[in-house]
Amino acid sequence: MSAGNHAQALAYHGGRLGIATTIVMPRSTPNAKVEQTRAHGAEVILHGNQFDETRDFTLAMARERDLTLVHPYDDPAVIAGQGTLALEILESSPPSLDVLLVPIGGGGLIAGIAVATKALAPGVQIIGVQSDRYPFAQHAFHGLTHPDIPNQGTIAEGIAVKSPGLLTMELIRRHVDEIVLVGEQEIEQAIFMLAEIEKTVVEGAGAAGVAAVLKHGARFEGQHVGTILCGGNIDMMTLSSVLQRGMARSHRLVRIRVEVPDVPGALGQVTQLIGELDSNIVELSHQRAFGASSAKAASVDLVLQLRGEEQVEQVLDGLAARGFDACLVR
Amino acid sequence: MSAGNHAQALAYHGGRLGIATTIVMPRSTPNAKVEQTRAHGAEVILHGNQFDETRDFTLAMARERDLTLVHPYDDPAVIAGQGTLALEILESSPPSLDVLLVPIGGGGLIAGIAVATKALAPGVQIIGVQSDRYPFAQHAFHGLTHPDIPNQGTIAEGIAVKSPGLLTMELIRRHVDEIVLVGEQEIEQAIFMLAEIEKTVVEGAGAAGVAAVLKHGARFEGQHVGTILCGGNIDMMTLSSVLQRGMARSHRLVRIRVEVPDVPGALGQVTQLIGELDSNIVELSHQRAFGASSAKAASVDLVLQLRGEEQVEQVLDGLAARGFDACLVR
Repeated sequence: MSAGNHAQALAYHGGRLGIATTIVMPRSTPNAKVEQTRAHGAEVILHGNQFDETRDFTLAMARERDLTLVHPYDDPAVIAGQGTLALEILESSPPSLDVLLVPIGGGGLIAGIAVATKALAPGVQIIGVQSDRYPFAQHAFHGLTHPDIPNQGTIAEGIAVKSPGLLTMELIRRHVDEIVLVGEQEIEQAIFMLAEIEKTVVEGAGAAGVAAVLKHGARFEGQHVGTILCGGNIDMMTLSSVLQRGMARSHRLVRIRVEVPDVPGALGQVTQLIGELDSNIVELSHQRAFGASSAKAASVDLVLQLRGEEQVEQVLDGLAARGFDACLVR
Repeated sequence: MSAGNHAQALAYHGGRLGIATTIVMPRSTPNAKVEQTRAHGAEVILHGNQFDETRDFTLAMARERDLTLVHPYDDPAVIAGQGTLALEILESSPPSLDVLLVPIGGGGLIAGIAVATKALAPGVQIIGVQSDRYPFAQHAFHGLTHPDIPNQGTIAEGIAVKSPGLLTMELIRRHVDEIVLVGEQEIEQAIFMLAEIEKTVVEGAGAAGVAAVLKHGARFEGQHVGTILCGGNIDMMTLSSVLQRGMARSHRLVRIRVEVPDVPGALGQVTQLIGELDSNIVELSHQRAFGASSAKAASVDLVLQLRGEEQVEQVLDGLAARGFDACLVR
């Protein structure tokens, strides 16, 4: 059972070693992950709306079909394997690494990394990062009872786990310093910035560490912070949306509404003016039934691409100067 | 003057060395490149719809203002600097490298790489890649006169150069084996595949080598082929479009048109059925004035996300089985 990387790793090695693998994934798993797992020759079963439903189904199926279960996180060998990442990081990072931010779902990755790091470089602070929609390891870390949180989707489906492992929680309590939470907005923004600045495609769960820097940036000032971009299996449609939403957040994509007299040539004037103001029209829709102040006027919504907040003002002012009533639509 | 990487390199080193830099870029330069160049402290002037207009303006301005011109490609030091890339490639690639595919705009990159490669590993074939909308180096390579090609936009604006350098063409004629062309479709598909499979954001010009593998794949069979992903300055809106168009090309995003009786509940039936067929609705639009067979019917266009061609058939068949007339809209 796996929401992603474990599935592909198992399928890959199963294929290499000639061992048949069956992977159960939650129904909401992005297509990209399902297809890449199948491509390695695994049988993929989609079951359960939540990872925990997937897990219960998998445990029952493994018993019934007499299959060996390779747990995605609550397994000492899996934890140790993921811990080798820390060896590579410590080898290649500057000796002054202060903090390592590690995304947590079931807890296997951070458990392995914390064990290895605290043994070799005990001065490095290990901070776990969870989605605020799935803060279950954080709650367990503080000894709180299982919180009653409504089931919500998250863009970080790779760490959307309701039951962290028993073994992993024991190691996390012993070796991890703290667990912080990040929201959907910060995760999205992290994916966007990694694509735009670092030219790297990272999935939500993999971007959680960068999201933590965005959210808790001030406290890390002057420190050397490392994080692990632990997955790139993001659906291309989702990435496409994240990019557009990132453009909108940075005012490089805005929606404005302009009232235009309902006569030939009026729309031509508006669109030409917007071109002269050096803004590119991405979308345009026209309607007459709602909102316009007169039956002889049409309300036109335009999605514009521009350079940022300053240019938004220039475009609105430029339209007003020519007598067109324009406003920003959020 | 530069359409991208040269601009940023110059601005960066100018800032580091305390030397003022002025960069002239074509007006169509993606915002991402303009902003990143400004961020390094350079003065950026946008001038010319074509790189060649930009060049003429720059030469005149440099004379007038008494500035030192650092040519983006027709300069021995720039060519030699870009040639160091070949040293790194030869050092890190398997000794059996057979072919190196290098994008060509003005020709600086391939000139440097060809000189270095043919000196150290003369067995490696150097093949240049150009956009078929800007095949000017290929024409010069074959001694043909400057072709009369209409000005067209290309997603590979980083190699959209009408006049390759004199110095670079001399080196290209001496050391490059061949120049091939790629189309917009293949460049787009290369950007898409690099993002989806390699998790790397590459601009059009940078993806031209992979596009050449897509187009001319058969001839490279059994060979070790290398290429240079020589730029990642793609506008995030453009990347977003490329991703969606890539999904459409691979039938993971399709548009269908369904005729629906214009009565309450009909649209609910259609959308529910599509959900049951495990397809996600991305967009829906509804209209009554055109195309529907009766005034009591509405024509509904739906953009659906699904797993590929096979599922498209399942959805169309599933709708037909329930009496809804549905067809694919290209």
